[in-house]
Amino acid sequence: MTERDPYEFDKHSFLVVISGPSGVGKDSVLRRMKELGLPFRFVATMNTRARRPDEVDGVDYHFVSTETFVTMLEQGELLEHAVVYGDYKGIPRQPVREALASGHDAVLRVDVQGAATIKRIAPQAIFIFLTAGSEAELIERLSRRRTETTETLRVRIAAAREELQRIPEFDYVVVNREGYLEEAVESVISIIRAEHCRVHPRQVIL
Amino acid sequence: MTERDPYEFDKHSFLVVISGPSGVGKDSVLRRMKELGLPFRFVATMNTRARRPDEVDGVDYHFVSTETFVTMLEQGELLEHAVVYGDYKGIPRQPVREALASGHDAVLRVDVQGAATIKRIAPQAIFIFLTAGSEAELIERLSRRRTETTETLRVRIAAAREELQRIPEFDYVVVNREGYLEEAVESVISIIRAEHCRVHPRQVIL
Repeated sequence: MTERDPYEFDKHSFLVVISGPSGVGKDSVLRRMKELGLPFRFVATMNTRARRPDEVDGVDYHFVSTETFVTMLEQGELLEHAVVYGDYKGIPRQPVREALASGHDAVLRVDVQGAATIKRIAPQAIFIFLTAGSEAELIERLSRRRTETTETLRVRIAAAREELQRIPEFDYVVVNREGYLEEAVESVISIIRAEHCRVHPRQVIL
Repeated sequence: MTERDPYEFDKHSFLVVISGPSGVGKDSVLRRMKELGLPFRFVATMNTRARRPDEVDGVDYHFVSTETFVTMLEQGELLEHAVVYGDYKGIPRQPVREALASGHDAVLRVDVQGAATIKRIAPQAIFIFLTAGSEAELIERLSRRRTETTETLRVRIAAAREELQRIPEFDYVVVNREGYLEEAVESVISIIRAEHCRVHPRQVIL
């Protein structure tokens, strides 16, 4: 602190990991955060699955071929990766590094398993667990997706129950209650803002 | 965590200590926070000095006689106290306990010395150091006060320089830049909101 100008703060950039079970609304929260034009860089996940009609390539995910994915994996260009329901998903390393180097916060959306992997690599990242207002809400949201079969729905609900047990590994919990998206978004933004005010800021090295 | 309903968060109440040198705008920030009607309880400091024309008894401070003050001190009813420029100041303990017991955050405004005392009693409180945008700004604000003589001004500037060295003892720094009061208030509110989202919340025992 003695080396630091007491009137100069908030010069750090953070890695923000937004996670939580399927159906809690990670995408909705991120979409709203982007709409608000906040000065963070969202790093989209690489994904080998087919794009859903409401998704935009490069915005929601980077949709890539399995070959491209495997090449990136071999070259160590993925921060974490997983096989999710038969498809490959992974976070590209370079855009995260670039965002942080340019002084921007890098925001990632990953599943709970992926968050655990990133925590091993970058324990100083900010880990936010997004949850629904209740299990009933979660089931309702998953059921609304046309892509879910009875079996995948049951698998996702069972997974969500297990994932909720991992909340203690996270720094923050944000409840995305049905009809209160703005509240959840405001909490996420507050968390990032508060971290920027910390006297001893987290130092992310990647 | 296993004992806790994963869908029930944000049931804690916190002790928030807003501190910083004279002239950084602690009162302005608190006044604005009160105007916004946020659900916190501000616990006003007891003060034996004369009320300034713009101050309201019970709102900005509790203006009390020296005798009342000393009686409270003897009965252990003050969380901290100090002699400040010849007058007594102190934080009453009971309203803080009551606020926390009723599920509200208790917000205090104290000088840097007082914050250090509270940190010894309640290390789990949230300590926010408010600072001006620059030393020039601080001097300008102090000079605007009609109550300052050349000597008290010099004393306050020297004190501010020393107090800035104590920032590492605090959790957060918020810069109250001239003309950006709303920014500073928003940062303080974000800090409190973020603390409410923490997976492992601070447990204040008083």
